[in-house]
Amino acid sequence: MKIIILKEKLAKGLSIVERITGKNLTLPILNNVLISAEDNSLKLSTTDLELGISYWGLAKVEEKGEITIPVRTLSGFVSLVGEEKVTIESKEKTLYLKGENYKTQIKGLDTKDFPIIPEVVSDKWLEFEAIAFCKGIMQVMDFCALTQVRPELSGLYFSFQKDLAKIAATDSFRLSEKTIALDGITQGLEGPQSFILPKNAAREIVNIFSEHNGKVKFSLSPSQVMIESYIDDTKNPQARLVSRLIEGEYPDYEAVIPKEFKTRVIIPREEFLNQIKIASLFSGRTNEVKLAISPKKGNVLISSQSVDLGETESRIAIAAQGEEVEISFNYKFLAEGLNQIKSDKIIFELNGQDGPGVLKPSDDASYIYVIMPIKAS
Amino acid sequence: MKIIILKEKLAKGLSIVERITGKNLTLPILNNVLISAEDNSLKLSTTDLELGISYWGLAKVEEKGEITIPVRTLSGFVSLVGEEKVTIESKEKTLYLKGENYKTQIKGLDTKDFPIIPEVVSDKWLEFEAIAFCKGIMQVMDFCALTQVRPELSGLYFSFQKDLAKIAATDSFRLSEKTIALDGITQGLEGPQSFILPKNAAREIVNIFSEHNGKVKFSLSPSQVMIESYIDDTKNPQARLVSRLIEGEYPDYEAVIPKEFKTRVIIPREEFLNQIKIASLFSGRTNEVKLAISPKKGNVLISSQSVDLGETESRIAIAAQGEEVEISFNYKFLAEGLNQIKSDKIIFELNGQDGPGVLKPSDDASYIYVIMPIKAS
Repeated sequence: MKIIILKEKLAKGLSIVERITGKNLTLPILNNVLISAEDNSLKLSTTDLELGISYWGLAKVEEKGEITIPVRTLSGFVSLVGEEKVTIESKEKTLYLKGENYKTQIKGLDTKDFPIIPEVVSDKWLEFEAIAFCKGIMQVMDFCALTQVRPELSGLYFSFQKDLAKIAATDSFRLSEKTIALDGITQGLEGPQSFILPKNAAREIVNIFSEHNGKVKFSLSPSQVMIESYIDDTKNPQARLVSRLIEGEYPDYEAVIPKEFKTRVIIPREEFLNQIKIASLFSGRTNEVKLAISPKKGNVLISSQSVDLGETESRIAIAAQGEEVEISFNYKFLAEGLNQIKSDKIIFELNGQDGPGVLKPSDDASYIYVIMPIKAS
Repeated sequence: MKIIILKEKLAKGLSIVERITGKNLTLPILNNVLISAEDNSLKLSTTDLELGISYWGLAKVEEKGEITIPVRTLSGFVSLVGEEKVTIESKEKTLYLKGENYKTQIKGLDTKDFPIIPEVVSDKWLEFEAIAFCKGIMQVMDFCALTQVRPELSGLYFSFQKDLAKIAATDSFRLSEKTIALDGITQGLEGPQSFILPKNAAREIVNIFSEHNGKVKFSLSPSQVMIESYIDDTKNPQARLVSRLIEGEYPDYEAVIPKEFKTRVIIPREEFLNQIKIASLFSGRTNEVKLAISPKKGNVLISSQSVDLGETESRIAIAAQGEEVEISFNYKFLAEGLNQIKSDKIIFELNGQDGPGVLKPSDDASYIYVIMPIKAS
């Protein structure tokens, strides 16, 4: 193998593929990148056995071939080297890098030992605008369950119907759902479809595609999903992620979303968030903050108290309708939901002191955040 | 006690005093700030028993008094509260904060239990420009020994003579020394003086005074040092740090600094640093990188190799005089020294393959960094 590639392109590709490496101590080859010199491009691939990532960069290929070497040694080198172009040669299991003022050898392993990353070849696929899609994932991914007690809750639930996709996550204390328009181009997905994506894969999708001005293609098989972007308007892939799916039945989360409300509040987001943070200082171990909402007075009292630390109470003017209600929440769940809503004002709908609350942006119907209260004892 | 103070001033003071709190789990009062309402100012004080910090902020004092409360509860509150002024009242051991839309109570402890922070009343003192002084401390403080095996090496060594102060630190692998001009005003310090300052105190001095446009006054007693800044041109203190000194005899470090050299190199700093970092990728567990300096050829070869990872070699053009030398260093010590020198070019003086090397800026004689090589085996 012999290739010449722009340093910047190589560095970009390595930064995308290296993130999933370095976590497996028993299988050293999982710390490696597989470098393949193909027709006019260099392909970089890594895998952690659950997830595979590939990246293609245009390169001058003087001799085809492939090699696998520790990815962090190469990315460390590339980030530091001063010259614009990098010349890469391989002989057997050693990679040679040469420039005007340096020569470097990196020892590799046998490419035969590198795990095969399966491609998803499927006639079921659909397309999204990459940026909007990644933004949607970011708004829900923090609310997956952190434990594996119920494995299906540890991932993001994707469901498709007609021209809409829904992404949902819940840890049973709160749930969030984002609706995204499909790009119109779908194939083989006439009926409703759904799958559960591991959170790690979601995180890498955001890292790889969140700045990609263009589309990503989603290909589905029963146990795997493949997401790809393309170089400009070609059919040549730029980046690809393949992930296993989580098996199991996702709970019928839509049944939890209240269809009605007893109290409805419109409240300035930032002020509300600030007052919740102040109340959190006195919330003690239970994280409990109290809201007393009075549509008649047009305000909400936010309070908390702790035997050891003291107490606080503040008042925010609101527009509200419906019943008076006193209700308690875990301030973390409330603050995390508010952090994912970017509008100046939010709508907060409540269903009595023991019923779920719903937070949503005042100007965007595509996102909701449902939060369970701390039940009155 | 009743006072009104600008939120910003209170927040600034709390950010200065709170850093040393929260580390002691057995004495809760060390998590507290002592708030004293004096004539026209609010004094904030904290201590970790080794170090005491005080800050004064102008305030409207309606009723004098003092109270002690958990500092992080107050600073959390102040950083979040929306209004410009904060009204603080105390009754017995409780602090009351009131604004248009909030009321908050913070429970305190008995001020009698707050440890007394001694003042240093001494006729031995001197003055520095705060910014230059803090910059000097920053250039050496990272090189104190990290263990307490030899307690005297865990601190910074200050020595004064005539109109110069020297600050030095060493962990016996490398040593650095910064020389700072005294401001002309000294008292009671005719003969040479020295003391060893704990690294923690140095770190807090930098945090408190490094942006202070003005002077700091250093007062010395046999076991303590007190550093103060003043409000504008008054004699009223703005911030004060009192620290114990480390007992013991500091080694005669000046004897280690080579007075001559066998090889002298002028080398571009950033390129040198980059090549050392590249070599570090292959340096393995010993952190060893090799330099082969050839004044005749006008270059230095920087190399490293590892049985597992591979090897690298790069070349930098240099101006050099004296003997050829091949010498090995721990790359971390070399890189850390280069990081503290800000000039474009550095001077590197060597004394054979087993003798100490000296790094210094090409344009500033006030700083040196001495580094011991890895001895040839």
